[in-house]
Amino acid sequence: MSGGHDAVEVIIAKRDGAELSDSQIDWVVAAYTNGEVADEQMSSLAMAILLNGMNRREIARWTAAMIASGERLDFGDLSWPTADKHSTGGVGDKITLPLAPLVAACGVAVPQLSGRGLGHTGGTLDKLEAIAGWRADVTNAAMWDQLQSVGAVICAAGSELAPADKKLYALRDVTGTVEAIPLIASSIMSKKIAEGTGALVLDVKVGTGAFMKDVDTARELASTMVELGTDAGLHTVALLTDMSTPLGLTAGNAVEVAESVEVLAGGGPADVVELTVALAREMLAGAGRTDVEPADKLADGSAMDVWRSMISAQGGDPDAGLPEARESHVVAAPATGVLTRLDALAVGMAAWRLGAGRARKEDPVQPGAGVVWHARPGDQVTEGSPLFTLLTDDESRFDRALESLDGGFDVEPDGSSYQPSPLLIDRIS
Amino acid sequence: MSGGHDAVEVIIAKRDGAELSDSQIDWVVAAYTNGEVADEQMSSLAMAILLNGMNRREIARWTAAMIASGERLDFGDLSWPTADKHSTGGVGDKITLPLAPLVAACGVAVPQLSGRGLGHTGGTLDKLEAIAGWRADVTNAAMWDQLQSVGAVICAAGSELAPADKKLYALRDVTGTVEAIPLIASSIMSKKIAEGTGALVLDVKVGTGAFMKDVDTARELASTMVELGTDAGLHTVALLTDMSTPLGLTAGNAVEVAESVEVLAGGGPADVVELTVALAREMLAGAGRTDVEPADKLADGSAMDVWRSMISAQGGDPDAGLPEARESHVVAAPATGVLTRLDALAVGMAAWRLGAGRARKEDPVQPGAGVVWHARPGDQVTEGSPLFTLLTDDESRFDRALESLDGGFDVEPDGSSYQPSPLLIDRIS
Repeated sequence: MSGGHDAVEVIIAKRDGAELSDSQIDWVVAAYTNGEVADEQMSSLAMAILLNGMNRREIARWTAAMIASGERLDFGDLSWPTADKHSTGGVGDKITLPLAPLVAACGVAVPQLSGRGLGHTGGTLDKLEAIAGWRADVTNAAMWDQLQSVGAVICAAGSELAPADKKLYALRDVTGTVEAIPLIASSIMSKKIAEGTGALVLDVKVGTGAFMKDVDTARELASTMVELGTDAGLHTVALLTDMSTPLGLTAGNAVEVAESVEVLAGGGPADVVELTVALAREMLAGAGRTDVEPADKLADGSAMDVWRSMISAQGGDPDAGLPEARESHVVAAPATGVLTRLDALAVGMAAWRLGAGRARKEDPVQPGAGVVWHARPGDQVTEGSPLFTLLTDDESRFDRALESLDGGFDVEPDGSSYQPSPLLIDRIS
Repeated sequence: MSGGHDAVEVIIAKRDGAELSDSQIDWVVAAYTNGEVADEQMSSLAMAILLNGMNRREIARWTAAMIASGERLDFGDLSWPTADKHSTGGVGDKITLPLAPLVAACGVAVPQLSGRGLGHTGGTLDKLEAIAGWRADVTNAAMWDQLQSVGAVICAAGSELAPADKKLYALRDVTGTVEAIPLIASSIMSKKIAEGTGALVLDVKVGTGAFMKDVDTARELASTMVELGTDAGLHTVALLTDMSTPLGLTAGNAVEVAESVEVLAGGGPADVVELTVALAREMLAGAGRTDVEPADKLADGSAMDVWRSMISAQGGDPDAGLPEARESHVVAAPATGVLTRLDALAVGMAAWRLGAGRARKEDPVQPGAGVVWHARPGDQVTEGSPLFTLLTDDESRFDRALESLDGGFDVEPDGSSYQPSPLLIDRIS
């Protein structure tokens, strides 16, 4: 069933700046999934899409074709409305961990399919796997049961969900074609639409530590995804949030779990709490529940109760101690003054080089590795007092981590150049 | 030995509009040849090159890297100077057949590595294989001996010559990346430079039946190739020649051999003679022999003598009858008047569909198939008299060949719209 198409015709059309027809898109996505279109043909097409773009209709059709390549979950028969969140990835971005149980505690179920990290941004599943016994793999039936009984699941996407996207994402990763907005948007949205959530909130990160370095590109990606979600009948909102500074005070795996538990216990860094509550409000609004105030559910312990049930349901022990790195190294503040800048990319690279992230998909991560910083921009620091603690199982990693941090922060005596930047940059609906 | 490079870095540099460094180019071409860079990475890079271009330095380095991927022939110790010609491909373009022996008859040896046809333009080797016993495969040693003794060889390029180009050309063919001037120019010139000729004349075809449809693009390709040859120390000239009308009166394999033999016998269609002599003059001038007039060597039979020796040396029988197609179909002139247009692409497609060419590399060709036309633009034709003769072994092919010819020519009563177009459009040195 070629529908009269062949790969070279589709590639040449996009290469020469034409719009792809619905039929061309349906064919090429299906044929790539079943192997009829070869990797070297799809990568050439991906490069043409990256350089020549796709319009709204093409992106929507491409997304639909990727959804159609696999199964589509349906949580319409739960007794709860559903909402999900997707972050484009940042440094110290542990928000999913407190957010999913918080939203469930407010009466909206969260079917959160997550991924593992690659490069300097961590992966939610890597973080949760620092908890003894916790399993990322959950069957569709078990996912339904856990959503119905607990209200929240954070788990790995099954291989039957948008297999075209899985195959294409792995290809883009090795062919220099990751940075194409139509392909990023359709990759994210095909999984989120196939996942069967009723409402979706997108946390689009902007800044040095994010995939999107500038606000205009981030806004374009956010708008594209909101349009895709809306066109697919999903209540979709995007927040543009700052990622020039890392979130909270930790980047790694176990250290981020610990910080998330602090938030669920009613404490935690102010920026993590602010973003968690802001995203929770959007998810609740998307699911029609504007009557509950999420901050109350952090304060009264009910979000923590859901967290404990959620971890237990997937084999984890919420009371187990978290893994600790074998080695640590403290970086002292070089001067007394105000921390005026802390660069998210520098911190993310340091955590990655310490072993918190992976360079290749098949690499393991160290659960205890990471970076803890003891001040946030705007805070006063004293010369010689600890500014960073670096954690790893392998002390040979300190040197390269320190190189990453070098130049990644500023301490100024009078702090006059410090300008607080808002965490929430924009909202697109 | 990665030289610190990886494929994604090189792809992203070109994708984002940067110039590739010498080191990046050397690495990526070598790594692709040895399999370290995968097909899907090279095709993505090829698309980025197609859309973002390469400058003169990049193209020269890319060409040098492709030459360095294999062996380089050297005919410096022949007692003859050498010259070669390359045509970018046209319909009825049998010029190499009379040209190589003609130039040898004038005292310049011709080491002509040729290819087989794919699509509507024929291949020189396919044409010569219509001669009983003739073999395209010649060892390097036999090539040297034949050049020394006969003065001309037309043969297949060995697999050790620019293997990077062979691999890349096959990839471009299936990934929509053929039409990139830097890659076309470096593909042609890497083979011609590695072939070891002392002078090179490029016949860059322009028009409906050619790869290049417009003069500006053809001129750009020609200039790029002349620069590459000159930079490599090769005396290089390009002629831009018309390919909106097919050459001569035949398109196919055996029929083109027969027409070439007519030219060598001192006859043949005027345009084929004109182009053969013009290219011979350029080759002779490039090799420093401006003292010989090639037209004389057609008239006195010496070019024919070389032809016979050249065919015999490769196992062919110059006196054997040529294969004839089993079926023929005559298309009569629809009106009396002047043939004001004969479209090269229409004729080429018809010949291809009759079996003279191949759709896939592994397909055989029919030696007897092709198209003979009985008038050239500007000629008077009479309603009902034969205008085309279609030749094939398989009469089911006539219908689609006739479809190709439909609309491919005009006969007008008074011929007032006929404007002769010059065969030689431009010369670039």
